[in-house]
Parts: sequence; C-alpha cells; structure tokens
Amino acid sequence: MPSPLPAPIVVIAPDSFKGSLSAQAVAEAIAAGVRRARADAVVRLAPMADGGEGTLDAMLARGGERRVLRVRGASGVERDAAVGILPDGSAVVETAEIVGITDAVAMREPVTARGTRGMGEAVRALLDAGVTRFFVALGGSSTNDGGAGLLVGLGLRLFDEADHALEPTPAGLARLARVDASMLDARLASATFVAMSDVDNPLTGEHGATAVFGPQKGVQPAHIAEIDATLARFAALAEAALGRAVRDLPGSGAAGGLGFALRLLGARFEPGAEVVASQVGLDAALDGASWLITGEGRSDAQTLRGKAPYVACRHARAAGVPASLLSGGVDPAALPALSAHFTGCFSPAPGPITLDVAIRDAARLLSNEAEQLTRLRYGAGEA
Amino acid sequence: MPSPLPAPIVVIAPDSFKGSLSAQAVAEAIAAGVRRARADAVVRLAPMADGGEGTLDAMLARGGERRVLRVRGASGVERDAAVGILPDGSAVVETAEIVGITDAVAMREPVTARGTRGMGEAVRALLDAGVTRFFVALGGSSTNDGGAGLLVGLGLRLFDEADHALEPTPAGLARLARVDASMLDARLASATFVAMSDVDNPLTGEHGATAVFGPQKGVQPAHIAEIDATLARFAALAEAALGRAVRDLPGSGAAGGLGFALRLLGARFEPGAEVVASQVGLDAALDGASWLITGEGRSDAQTLRGKAPYVACRHARAAGVPASLLSGGVDPAALPALSAHFTGCFSPAPGPITLDVAIRDAARLLSNEAEQLTRLRYGAGEA
Repeated sequence: MPSPLPAPIVVIAPDSFKGSLSAQAVAEAIAAGVRRARADAVVRLAPMADGGEGTLDAMLARGGERRVLRVRGASGVERDAAVGILPDGSAVVETAEIVGITDAVAMREPVTARGTRGMGEAVRALLDAGVTRFFVALGGSSTNDGGAGLLVGLGLRLFDEADHALEPTPAGLARLARVDASMLDARLASATFVAMSDVDNPLTGEHGATAVFGPQKGVQPAHIAEIDATLARFAALAEAALGRAVRDLPGSGAAGGLGFALRLLGARFEPGAEVVASQVGLDAALDGASWLITGEGRSDAQTLRGKAPYVACRHARAAGVPASLLSGGVDPAALPALSAHFTGCFSPAPGPITLDVAIRDAARLLSNEAEQLTRLRYGAGEA
Repeated sequence: MPSPLPAPIVVIAPDSFKGSLSAQAVAEAIAAGVRRARADAVVRLAPMADGGEGTLDAMLARGGERRVLRVRGASGVERDAAVGILPDGSAVVETAEIVGITDAVAMREPVTARGTRGMGEAVRALLDAGVTRFFVALGGSSTNDGGAGLLVGLGLRLFDEADHALEPTPAGLARLARVDASMLDARLASATFVAMSDVDNPLTGEHGATAVFGPQKGVQPAHIAEIDATLARFAALAEAALGRAVRDLPGSGAAGGLGFALRLLGARFEPGAEVVASQVGLDAALDGASWLITGEGRSDAQTLRGKAPYVACRHARAAGVPASLLSGGVDPAALPALSAHFTGCFSPAPGPITLDVAIRDAARLLSNEAEQLTRLRYGAGEA
C-alpha cells in the first residue's frame, strides 16, 4: 500500500528526562516510534540540553571527546567527573557533573560546607591540556559559595584576620578578611569562557543567588541574610582584587554565584539551550523538515523560560516547522500558554500510572506515543 | 490569521467512561477541546454504547422518552429503573439498569439469590403501555438465573416436587420439578425482541454462562458444575414447555442466561454497538466527515471484540474516515493490534496520575487531549 502522504522529515530534539533517560535515549525512543508508524520517515536526532545535567552529553552528541578528571566534589571528596573536548578544541565543563545536586556524597554535608573548588581544578587541568576556550554549563549545582571555589582552584587565595588560609565555602568565607589574586593562573588572561545559563539573577540581594536559589540547596530561611552578606563581602574583596565590578550583572547569581566568578574571568553569558542548539546543528537539521518533536521530563510554565524544548520550538517555528511537545508530564495549568507555541503537547502516559512505572517504562511508552502521534499526523493506517 | 487547512468535520462517537462520565458527557468534553483548537470545526456528536451500562442513554440521545418503572432489582428489592421509548414506539430495556452489577443493594445477596424477574416486570409494564418491539441491552447483569426471572415476570410458573411455586433464582431452580407456560403473557406472541449482545456463548457447558461469566458475578468455582446443571435442567423443562430448543444457540449464555430466555421468546440477536450506531445515526454523521474520535474508559485487546469504539472505527473506515481512539487508559500490550484499526490511540493522562485524579478530572483532561490532538492533526498554531 503506498503511503498516503510524502515521507515526513522529522527532527527529534528533546531534553533528557531527568532521573530516567538521557536526551539521546529519549530521542532514540521517539525515533523508533516514528519509524514504526512511517518506515519511510527521515529522522534527524538533535538531543538537547539547557545548561543543566545532560549538557555535556548533548554537546558531545555530534562529536568530540569525553575525558574523565579526578577533582573535588562539592564537599571536597574527590570524584571522577567527565568533561568534554569539542572537535574545535573548546572544552565543556558541566557544573552538574562536578558539584551537582544529585551527588549523594556531597549532599550529606550542609550547604555551608559545599563549594566549587572542583570546578577550578577541572578548568586548570584543561588549561594544562592546552584548552583556551571553555563552555561552562551552570545548571544543577548544589553550591552557594559565590564561585569562590572556582577561583581558589585557579589560584585565588582567601585569608582570615590572622592571615590563615580559608576554605572557599560559605563557612570559610564567613571569616574572610583578605583576598589575594596574585597567584591566579596567568593563562586565564588569554582564556575565554562562555557561561551557559538561563539565570538573570545578580549575585546578592533579594533577587540574588542565596535568596532565590539557596533554599532549594538547603539554605535555611533564617540564614539567608547572613550568607548573602558573606557573599557580598567576598564579592567586594574579589572585585577589588581582580579590578572588575560584576556582582550585579545578570547571571552573576547563577549556580550559587559561580556565575559571578565566571564574570570576574570575563565570561560571556549565553542561554544554555541556544549554545546546545548551535552545537548539535539544530538549524541545519530543521532544513526541509516537516515536523519537530521535543520534550522533557516534565513541562510547565517554566518551560517557556528558556528551557530546551522551548528553544527547540522557537528554532523550528523560525524555520517554518511545526513543533510538538512530548514530555513525561505536562502541567494542565500550563497548556494554554504552551499551546501558543507548540502544535500539540502530549505525555506518553497510557492512562493512570505511577511515577515509578513512568520512569521504568519511559523508553517503551515514548516509542508508543511517538508512533501514535506520527500515525495521527501523517495518516499511517488510513487505508 | 486564516486557518491553514479547511474546516474539519469531526464525528465524536465515544462509549461512556464507566464510573466517570456518560458517553454524552465524554463526547461533549471532546467536542469542547476540538472547538478550542479549531473554532471553525463542524462537530457531530454520536455517543455510543455496546449493550451494557449507558446503552439506554445512548439509544435516547437522538430522541425518545425516558420512563421510570418500579420493578424488582436482582435481589427482589423494588427500585426505580429507567426504560426508554424510542420515537418509533419501540422500547429500550437495559439489563444493567434493572439487575446491574453496580446495584449495591442487590450485590449484598449471593448470586444464587439474584434473578431477573424485574426484567420481566419491565417488559410486562411496557406491553401494558402498548409496546410491541423491544430492544433489550444485555450487558452488565449481576444475575445467573438462566433468564428464569424474565419469564416468570411474564407469567411462566416454576414448581418443585410438592407443586410449591419456586423463586426464579439459582437457589429456587435447584429444586425445580415442573415448568408451566400456560399463563405466559399472550401478548408475547406478537411482540418482537432484539437482544443487544456481543456474547456468543451457549447457556450451559464449559463455554456456558456459569462457567465463563459466573465467577465475576460471585459464583464460587466449586459451585459452577452444580449451578450449570441446575440451569440445564431448567432449560430442558422451559424448552419443552415453550416448544423451542435454543439453549445451545449463540447468545443464550449472555447475561447469565437472560439471552436464553429471550431466545425462547424468539429474539433476534444483534451486536449491541451496531444497534446503537444505527440508532444514533453514526453513518449519516460520518457522511463527508474528515475524522472520527471514539474511546472508552479503558481499551485493551477486548476492544476489538465488538466494543463500541471498534464498531465506531469500522463504520468510520468503511466511510473512508480515519478513526482515532481516545480512552481513559490504553493497554500498551494491545497497541499493535489496536493500531491496525485506529489512526492513533491516546489517553488524556497528562503524565503520571492516579486513577482517582483521572476520574475526577476526566472531562477537563479529555478536552485538553482532544484539543492537542486536533492541533496536531489540523495544524492549529502552525503560524
């Protein structure tokens, strides 16, 4: 039986389903379903990410090299953490991979004892390897150290009143009296940083890292003001030492202030999903395509604030390609807003199911739903 | 912005979602969603049923009169039960409404004490009202009395060895010695019955009513043989008294043997959903339509055995109209089989949700899903 419509060209550009499937695995599951419905479909995979967990994987999907470094985790315990070297020699450093909130070992320590020194160690190791251009994905951190750890890992020194060296953690910074930048890695002067982040917050104040993101990392409401003041004092001293005033710039409050440290190093900030879209060649994949499918573990009103599916949708529509959303869950309250952008928002849930089953069967259910949606859109089975 | 495609004509022909929404309510919820996606859509509602609960409602959807009768429920307790008078004067009697398995009062009695006399009372009351043509919907019964109750309600008499009158229940029939048909309502000779049923089982034996359907009504496995033998003896005596041998005909085992009693009265058997499709004018609704949406509370492999969504799908495809399934739940294991017929099988679940939430929010979720599917199929939002 001849197909009733021309062979569809389908771009599949989902984010990961956190705690369940990588973006690549989601894309492959969806692709399998599309092909079951239309064996003649041309399927183009463009796994996405937004600067959080999974960004490294997505950035490496089209090529490059994965390297494992031995660096400090957020609580100071050494761990293996992957970084990426892109084909052009740029490096990708993912905050979630090194000081991520999913690191159970680090999360046993209070937020005041966690820091980003491992990030600085990773950058230094990459400088040692000759890297001069860094993509730093800022999502998913467990830390709130103002990026002091990153800078200390790169040679900055912190001292108390008695000139004793301090740990680059909120607890250490509370006793900060002096910052010395004289030992900062000289190679940083010729390195460039792209901070991948959707966060516009400044470092401190009511919209700052501690007030807005601190609680989800374990900052007690009663301690917000104190920790915020600690970061403000660190910022003032660090800015003076490095000769840059950046703490109020948008993004300085990203990743518990890691954004501030990167701004001190001259980083350019770009929306995470835009950087990934560029790296995976999303626009090229959309050329001549008839449909884009994107998705994430759960979609809600936040999705429209720069999350990967929204960025994928914007690119698709700019190319004249309708974009459908296929997410593990879709908040019904957000449907009107989502519907202004997506041509259909769907969940693979085949009925009332538990979250455990949804996670366990995610690949199979995604394939099924993608098959059914493809049948509906492209008319397979309409004999 | 002009619509990108011609205005769709959508036929909405779902079964009820049992325990949640009537077929009419399901159809209205879906229609609301279709219209949200495409305000220009022409929507035609054809609520379906398959001979079980909800059949009366569906049969009356296009006109006719609903009447409430006072008749015995399955356990003998009187109850109000609705019947229908169609515009052509035919009556609709729904087994589920009179001796249904959802009647909590009747279900307090054991299956051996339950019977269908109320069905006979209903038919007799309708004969009194001048009705000569009956549609009897056979699904959803709680009884296993071989239809003895129906016949007793219409004048048949049952006696034990001592010529004491017996109750028309399995317990009463166990002592049956003699059947007297001399007082059977004479008007039955000129009445015609259409039995709405998808069940092909004979009255007795390994494929009979007791062996196959008895357990779900409370027949203990150890009692199957005994009750089956009781029905066989009743059948032999009743057949002799009425001069018809019908117990092995397909459908005699429907509704705990109510099918047998209707066969004794000369009933013609028709698939329930086909009768409903005819009554609601499904084929006329499909004329010129571009899409049919059907569904039910839960779809699985049984759906393809004559359930309402399958019948609606068959009619649609015969008319060249693609049919999509939108059911509360879709068994993933049945998707390959369902996909051979339906152009897409979907659930309104927006992610992992409980059955309670699915039931509570059914109308809203159905509207949402219908809207999203319509957007996908007809391109709303593809600017």
